[in-house]
Order: sequence, then C-alpha cells, then structure tokens
Amino acid sequence: MKLVKAEIIAIGDELLYGQIMDTNSHWISQELDLVGVKVVRKTTVGDKREDILTAFSEAEKRADLVLITGGLGPTQDDLTKPLLAEYFNCPIQEVPEAVAAITEFFKRRGREMTPLNILQGHLPSCCQYVPNEVGTAPGMWFERGETYWMSMPGVPHEMKKLMRDFVIPKLPEIFELPIIFHKVIKTAGIGESWLADLINDWENALPENIKLAYLPSLGHVKLRLTGFGTEFKSIEAEVDNQIQLVLPKIQKYVYGYNNETLETAIGKLLRENRKTLALAESCSGGYITHLVTTVPGSSDYLQGAVVPYHNEFKQKILRVKKETLESKGAVSEETVQEMSKGVRQLFGADFGLASSGIAGPDGGTAEKPVGTVWIACAGEGFIETKKLQLTQDRLLNIQLTGVAVLNLLRICIEKYDK
Amino acid sequence: MKLVKAEIIAIGDELLYGQIMDTNSHWISQELDLVGVKVVRKTTVGDKREDILTAFSEAEKRADLVLITGGLGPTQDDLTKPLLAEYFNCPIQEVPEAVAAITEFFKRRGREMTPLNILQGHLPSCCQYVPNEVGTAPGMWFERGETYWMSMPGVPHEMKKLMRDFVIPKLPEIFELPIIFHKVIKTAGIGESWLADLINDWENALPENIKLAYLPSLGHVKLRLTGFGTEFKSIEAEVDNQIQLVLPKIQKYVYGYNNETLETAIGKLLRENRKTLALAESCSGGYITHLVTTVPGSSDYLQGAVVPYHNEFKQKILRVKKETLESKGAVSEETVQEMSKGVRQLFGADFGLASSGIAGPDGGTAEKPVGTVWIACAGEGFIETKKLQLTQDRLLNIQLTGVAVLNLLRICIEKYDK
Repeated sequence: MKLVKAEIIAIGDELLYGQIMDTNSHWISQELDLVGVKVVRKTTVGDKREDILTAFSEAEKRADLVLITGGLGPTQDDLTKPLLAEYFNCPIQEVPEAVAAITEFFKRRGREMTPLNILQGHLPSCCQYVPNEVGTAPGMWFERGETYWMSMPGVPHEMKKLMRDFVIPKLPEIFELPIIFHKVIKTAGIGESWLADLINDWENALPENIKLAYLPSLGHVKLRLTGFGTEFKSIEAEVDNQIQLVLPKIQKYVYGYNNETLETAIGKLLRENRKTLALAESCSGGYITHLVTTVPGSSDYLQGAVVPYHNEFKQKILRVKKETLESKGAVSEETVQEMSKGVRQLFGADFGLASSGIAGPDGGTAEKPVGTVWIACAGEGFIETKKLQLTQDRLLNIQLTGVAVLNLLRICIEKYDK
Repeated sequence: MKLVKAEIIAIGDELLYGQIMDTNSHWISQELDLVGVKVVRKTTVGDKREDILTAFSEAEKRADLVLITGGLGPTQDDLTKPLLAEYFNCPIQEVPEAVAAITEFFKRRGREMTPLNILQGHLPSCCQYVPNEVGTAPGMWFERGETYWMSMPGVPHEMKKLMRDFVIPKLPEIFELPIIFHKVIKTAGIGESWLADLINDWENALPENIKLAYLPSLGHVKLRLTGFGTEFKSIEAEVDNQIQLVLPKIQKYVYGYNNETLETAIGKLLRENRKTLALAESCSGGYITHLVTTVPGSSDYLQGAVVPYHNEFKQKILRVKKETLESKGAVSEETVQEMSKGVRQLFGADFGLASSGIAGPDGGTAEKPVGTVWIACAGEGFIETKKLQLTQDRLLNIQLTGVAVLNLLRICIEKYDK
C-alpha cells in the first residue's frame, strides 16, 4: 500500500502578519492522521500572486492531495479562485446551482446580498462545485494527473464542515487507505515517564499493527492506541483487548476514553451515584468550579461553591476554627480538612472539596514556598487530603490544582461510594 | 528603504501529524511585524532530510532572514543541526563555551547529563554560537550572501528568549528598518462595527504615516495604532496626540492600553481607590472570580465569592428573598439586584457583583431563551443592572458574561467612586 502524501496551503496576509493564528492546518493534520494520510508539508503564503502560484506548483510536484484554505472572500484582495483558474488553465463561469445556494443563504439570514456575493457562485470550469452550507464561498475540487485538490474557505467552521462532509468521506474512494482504529485512554495523577515505567512490558509486547503514542498535557497524559489492519471490527477488538491487558496496571489513573474530560467524567460518576458536590476554593480562586460548570447539566450535581479569599471568611462562612488558622496557618492540612467539611455542610452536599495554597508569585516562605498547595475531599465518614508541590507560575499552579482536586474527587468516589 | 523579507521554517513530525500546534510561527510573525519585517512565507516540514534541505534552499532564494525552529533535540531523529552543517558545508565541532553552558545548566537543576547532551554543545563551525540560558540546545546564527539565518529550539519559552535577547535586537544592526511605534487601545462593551462608526471621521483624517487596525476578540475590540517615521520620539508623540483626539468619542469603552487586561485594569482601579470586591456568580459558575484571581496580588481587593447554583443557596447564603425568586424567577433583574447586595454584605465589600442567566444548552423558555443573562453591580448607595442577550453556546455565554460583569464594575467605579 502506497503512503498517501498531503500538503496544506494556508493563504492570507493576516496569517503571515500574526493577526490570526492558523488553527486550520493543525486541525486538518489531526483529521488526516486519523484516516492514515500523511501531511508532509504545510505552507502559509500571503495574498500575493507569485507566492500563491509557486506554492501550488511546489505542492503538485510532491503531494497526492493538496488542501487549500483561505483567500476565497468576495473582495479583490482574495486571489485563490482566480489563481486556481489560471493554474489549471480554465475560465471562471457562472455555476447556477452555486449562485442559487448563495442567494438562499442570504435570504435565510435576512441579510443584504451584494453583486460581489453573487460572483462567489462563479467558479473555474474545471473544478467540481462543492456546496458550503454554512457560508458563501463554495468549496472547489480539482483533479489533475495523480494529484487531487480541494480549496476551502479560511473560516474554521466552514472549512471543518467541508472536510467532514466531503473531503474525508471522499478519501477512501480515491486512495487505497489503511484501515485504522484509534482509542485514547485518558489518565490524570501520574507523569509521563512514571506511566511509561508502569506499562513498559505491555508496550514492548504490543503487536506490530498497534502503535502507542504518549500525549501529555497539563496534569494529564493521554495514551493513544492506533491499530492498523484490513478489517475494522477485528482491529477494534484487538485494540480493546490490549486495553483490557494494560488496565490492571493503570486503572487508578484512568478517568475515561477518547473525548471524555475529567469534568465530564466526575459529572458522570456523580450523576450515576446520585451524589452532589460543593467546593471551597482558596488558592484556585473559582477555577475548579468554572471547570465543573462548563459541563452542560452540571446543576444536577453541583450545589455551589465559596471562594473565601481571606481567613475571616474561612471562619465566618465555612466554620474553620480560629485556632486552626492561627496555629497551623491557612495553607495546612488541618485548614483544608475543615474547609472541605464546612462547605459540605453549608451546601448539604455529599462531597466537599477544598483547596488552599500559595499560588504566587509572592507570599511564599522558606517553610511553605510558592507552589505549596493542600487539597481535601470530605464525604460521609471520610476526609482525604493531599499536599502538592507545584511551580513558580501562578496560572499554572491554579490549573494544576484544578486537575488534582477533580482527580482526588474521582478517586474518593471510586473508593468510598461504589 | 528596501522591504526586509523573512521566512519561518518549523521542523518536526509532531507538527505535521497534529500532535502539537505550532504556536511559534504565529508569535514570531507578530514580533517581526512590530519591528517592520515582513514575513512572506511560513513552512512546516517533518524530520526528513530532503524535505528540510528543500525548505532551506527555497527560503534562501526568497528571504533576507530565515528563522528556523525545532529539530534540535539530542536524539538521532533531530536533524536540523547536521543538515545546517551540510547545507552551509562546514563541519560540526566542539564549542567549549557551549559545552560548559550545558554542563552548568544540568548542574544547576541537579539533573543527570547524558553524552548526547554534551554533543548539543558541538556546532557547525560556520555558525555563531548563541547561548540558550533556559534550555540545552544552543541558538545558531548563520550569514551567507545577503541572507541571515537563525536556528532555535522548538520549545516556545526557549525560542522566545532567543528572539527577544538576540534576534530582535540584532535586526536594526543588519537591516535598514523603518522606525515604528505601536500603541493599542483596549475597549470592551462595544462591537467592532459600532466602534468603527463612532471613530469614522477621526480614522479618515489620520495622517499617512499612522495606520489603524481593528483587532476584535471575545467581547473586546483592540485598536492598534502604528506610526512610521524617522525618529522614535516624534512618532510616539504623534500617535499619542491622535489617541488624545479620539479618546473623547470612545472614553467610556476604553479600559486600558497595550498589555493591560480587563482583570488587571479593574484591579488597578480598586487598588487606587482602596476598594474591595465580592462576587455572586450563578450562570458564570466561578469564571469571573477565576479571571480576577489570575492577577497576582488580587487578594488585596478581592474578599471572596459565592457560586449559589440553586435557589435555596441564593436565599440561605445571599439572603435573596423567597418571594423574589418565586415571583420573578432566578434569572431576573430583581434577583441579581438582591444577589449583588447580599454578597456585598456577606463579605463586607465595597462592590458586589452578580450574574444569573441561562447558559444553555438546556433550560431556555420562550420568555427567557438560552443566552438570557442578568448582571448587577451594587455599591454604596447604588445598584446598576444590565440584561444581556447572548448566544446558544454555553462556554461562550460564560465568557461573554465575564467580560460584561467586569466591564460593568469598571463603569461603576468610574461613575460612582472617583
């Protein structure tokens, strides 16, 4: 099976001058990787005739598939369409179906259409018109020699829809592609190298047709298994079988699969167990509650939260004892224990979570340097605590505390509530 | 004055396969734009000999400056250094200064050094060694014909330090660059087209050597003024003079300049006025408190926050009247008024902020569709409220509520407290 090579060309001055970050190329890379097409080059050029034509001819020499984004606006500085017509040597002519679609697009939104918009329905005669249901610039599909081309608008959601509806489904028709199945194991609470140590034997014994990738991000490590083969169902079964083999080694770090997040995972656990949650966030300053409330339907299990940014409110609202704060300090195991109990009681919740630490950049001492954070989870008959020693960076400390607190909750639900 | 043209080459399989998003090229573009160097092309290639060499030779034909990131790790799959040596036709040899710096780097961190790390201090003999103080892969500066080259690691903070400390200061020495002065006016609470309408006359009357760019982002619009000339002080004065001319038209939307954010701006206002703040966040779920607490030193003015995710806690903790909730509903002007008063009292704060709304995707009604949000700011002797009609998207609604609430606080401080 021949490797299918793709190149991505992003067109637009705004991408070169740093006004807009090109997230399209990254997204396209990910999608193509999932179906077994290899991106071999990405190029960004401005709205300039020679630069665009050079990018086209360089790409044609190397690639089986050329994906172009941007430069399809209705104004004169958008050059992609006329230059494609020039490059493929065919005239631009009206495509009645495209003009009708654009007219309909404006009508539906009750917006004025200009003559320039109508011209967006005129396309090079040698391309296949690909309807864009969510915008005015159509997609254009070209074939010449052994290279296939797709031109798409630069607006991310328009590009994504054309990729999902047209390009990705078309690839297996024109190329011989490997059959690929991906599954991602999501973990938290363990670093990449420790995780690698734990699963080393399993990794070395993986069959030839299953590849493993470590994808670390803030406080998380994702394990992506990619299986290759000739028949989808059997690859899926093979990958799932390997996951069953590795799970016993890493079970306590695994919170979900594929698109699941720690927030959605704890939401699912709480809902399944019909349990509720309350948070007392000192150093994390509302961030964890924000994470929890980004999940639709979180009001089913979240009762509420308090951010007591000074000791007097830890006492007054959460009933932390004055003596505890005076003898142990706000950043201490005893204080987060009382905070987690207090917030659980205040909101009548099943679980109470608490954080208290020195986020920085100031406020550190020799005994409790910046990055020292205590967290706690209180429930019926238990309190679990953990001390974190994080970084010098305030925002990073807030984010890492968030992952650690939600992961502590997950562990407590698994441990005490099942 | 000749236009200085730059090309950026990013090297690494992980960039092509979508494992890592290339944020470096975007950042470099922005920095070069600020000093008047035009990026004419960005290229991303994988860890493959021919592809990298092709990218080098294509760039040399077109550019005055070539900036390369990535491919400088200690392992065999990192090819940038040997290929630069091959391309410039000079041997790799030990640079004692570089080896000493790497040794020192590991010593400072108490980490083990491998023989591969020592080899990172061996460089092509035709390059200038540029110390990397925050990592192990040195920068390399090359000059040939009329093109200048810099190779930097792909780790963003290492690349940024080399750009700031070495490349950017070097550019005026080797190129004749325009003298440029930028100043950014930060606004919130007004959309791009309305802002454009307000300042249309002023914009049309701008002198030839001052350019205006609208840079919209979530809930904000930045106005970037760029002045060109031959002498820095006089351009700075010209730009500041234009800002004084436009300010009367837009003053109430302006919260700061350049790197200021809405969070830092309200922090400054509160600190200057020795005032304190408390928040009651229902639909925004802790997000606004998170924004406020990302600012170092925010404990000087933030007292605390409550997220009362159910009506009973709005009553119990914030003293919202049962009758108000029953007759007007949780998402109403009356409820946010009582929430803002209640939270102000609970924390003994000068200002109390409140939000209540339907973030979505569910929970909307015909009368109060998804995206309906009420916000309030209470202070000594006043309460200001505002109704927002936002989007269908939960996260977007949370974020837009955040901008609106902080902007309402800013307006109230300006109006009642100065």
